Amino acid sequence: MTVRPASIAISTPVIALDVMGGDAGLADVMAAAEIASERYPRLTFRLHGPEPRIRAELARLPRLAATAEVIHTDEVVLGTDKPSQAMRRSRTSSMGMAIQSVKDGHAHAAVSAGNTGALMAMALVTLRTMPGIDRPALAALLPTLKNDSIVLDLGANTESDAENLVQFAVMGAAFARTVLGLEKPRVALLNIGEEELKGTGEIKEAAALLRASHLPMVFEGFVEGDKIGQGNVDVIVTDGFSGNIALKTAEGTGKLVVGLLTEAFKSSWLSRLGYLLSRPALRALRAHLDPNAHNGAVFLGLNGLVVKSHGSANIRGIANAIGVAHDLIADKVGERIAHDLADFRAHRPETAQEPVSQ
Amino acid sequence: MTVRPASIAISTPVIALDVMGGDAGLADVMAAAEIASERYPRLTFRLHGPEPRIRAELARLPRLAATAEVIHTDEVVLGTDKPSQAMRRSRTSSMGMAIQSVKDGHAHAAVSAGNTGALMAMALVTLRTMPGIDRPALAALLPTLKNDSIVLDLGANTESDAENLVQFAVMGAAFARTVLGLEKPRVALLNIGEEELKGTGEIKEAAALLRASHLPMVFEGFVEGDKIGQGNVDVIVTDGFSGNIALKTAEGTGKLVVGLLTEAFKSSWLSRLGYLLSRPALRALRAHLDPNAHNGAVFLGLNGLVVKSHGSANIRGIANAIGVAHDLIADKVGERIAHDLADFRAHRPETAQEPVSQ
Repeated sequence: MTVRPASIAISTPVIALDVMGGDAGLADVMAAAEIASERYPRLTFRLHGPEPRIRAELARLPRLAATAEVIHTDEVVLGTDKPSQAMRRSRTSSMGMAIQSVKDGHAHAAVSAGNTGALMAMALVTLRTMPGIDRPALAALLPTLKNDSIVLDLGANTESDAENLVQFAVMGAAFARTVLGLEKPRVALLNIGEEELKGTGEIKEAAALLRASHLPMVFEGFVEGDKIGQGNVDVIVTDGFSGNIALKTAEGTGKLVVGLLTEAFKSSWLSRLGYLLSRPALRALRAHLDPNAHNGAVFLGLNGLVVKSHGSANIRGIANAIGVAHDLIADKVGERIAHDLADFRAHRPETAQEPVSQ
Repeated sequence: MTVRPASIAISTPVIALDVMGGDAGLADVMAAAEIASERYPRLTFRLHGPEPRIRAELARLPRLAATAEVIHTDEVVLGTDKPSQAMRRSRTSSMGMAIQSVKDGHAHAAVSAGNTGALMAMALVTLRTMPGIDRPALAALLPTLKNDSIVLDLGANTESDAENLVQFAVMGAAFARTVLGLEKPRVALLNIGEEELKGTGEIKEAAALLRASHLPMVFEGFVEGDKIGQGNVDVIVTDGFSGNIALKTAEGTGKLVVGLLTEAFKSSWLSRLGYLLSRPALRALRAHLDPNAHNGAVFLGLNGLVVKSHGSANIRGIANAIGVAHDLIADKVGERIAHDLADFRAHRPETAQEPVSQ
């Protein structure tokens, strides 16, 4: 049933862009696409949204106007829509049509800043999982003391068995090779201790499978939550529930510390002066932690790429999410994942090897 | 089988102290007990550890010397011991004997800064769970933008069903009433979304049970990881796996931001000067986040109290953990929990009411 998007040559990557998603609004989403067009001159766009408003913006965006195709729709998925409500517009809304473009082979990747739950549901139902993948995962970049790390799953699945976790590891490693440019990413499972005895049965079994595998990664065993920020591993694999909790706790703690810091600086004239002197240095800190610099979460494991831009991302952030989509297309991340999974299944430690499902 | 520690009057609370646990060493643990003796003049101690070394320290600690009983042992649980190894010394080690003191009714609470896994295993096997509690939980205080919040479970259980989560909520609320001095603590379940549809079956069921209950708490529904640091709820309930991940991720992110901040201040002469001017204000920030100020995680739901001081706590931190033990004893937290659980069971929404187990 599934049409795989192999019909268009990758020399001209095509992004299906939902211009209606997110807080930024149509003008900012399109301005981001203009920036991405400048960065990646071969990139072309299919713009899904209300044609009159899109045309009005295109008049100001020469690069985008030169390559973009406009596919009109007035229907929008709202941030407050439940996935079930959104599904009713999976063929008629800007978000649904962007995903449909990927399914029909008209685009290599869909990018949307809209409702995550709706995007996830539509992407799964429309594109279906790749052969060999039971469940897709949502992966994102996280700032650390060193280079960015990739964390997955971030909420596409609330529970995961050992086989799911191994598939997440394979997908995360492929993502790391593409986006972080690493040949053999260091991969670890998120756990509540580093000793082999700790954790759930699923995690221990996943660790045993990964330890015995010959995948293009260095399996580092278990990592605890307090190591996420240190950047000593490149890919952190976990079930969607824990991953979502970890990501959001990190976000919340970052805000807590910055909030307390702001209060501290405001607490006296001396500290206000201190702040003024330190401001350029603190700006670098802010830039390092800025979510816009790490924008672009990816649904991995589907027959086609879907990139989720953060709902509150600004123009630069959305342009970065489009950049992530570009890199994943150029690197044929889907083919990498399929290859590694086949390799893992061919060499998996159990005597009874599962056939690669079609 | 279980001897409940009701034989000693609470007008003279007794703490069984493992003087050998943690990084601080015997002298610091005892110095912390001296500080606690000053703060709570009625507090008395049973000191478990090597008698000659304890006696040598007591010569310098007049208050502690006046009330402490020394119970000699040379055996120690090491930080590297697995729970199964430690269990072999559950009657002979300083940690094991401290818990035994509680079981035998010689002390109201045990305090140790040693190996968490070993302490948890020994406490469970020696003290057993309270009637009506299926699994004990580890609860701790977390700094927020406002007042401290309580989070539980933090790793005593890797998986929890709805009934367990409800019991954690009851125990956490009782802890909040004691340690935070709140009459009706605001309680929420940690989840990956705030809508009723989100999360695992266990969480949704626990939410339904808590919503229908008449416990001395305000049930606030679901809370996401990014809200942990905001202090809008007093008790955050979760399974041990997610709780441990959340707590450690918060710890790690705090360190990441402080690490980046330190780098930022060092990056130029101007920012160094800015740091010097802001230092007093930044010290207040550091104090707000200092784990020693929030020290003292508690195993709730056992027939007797066990308080875990953080392994890296300093003298002040250990004294705070002893203070938590004192408050829980004085407030008869065990009785509160038993009362609330009985009340919950008497009014639970199902038609088939479970009898209170003995």
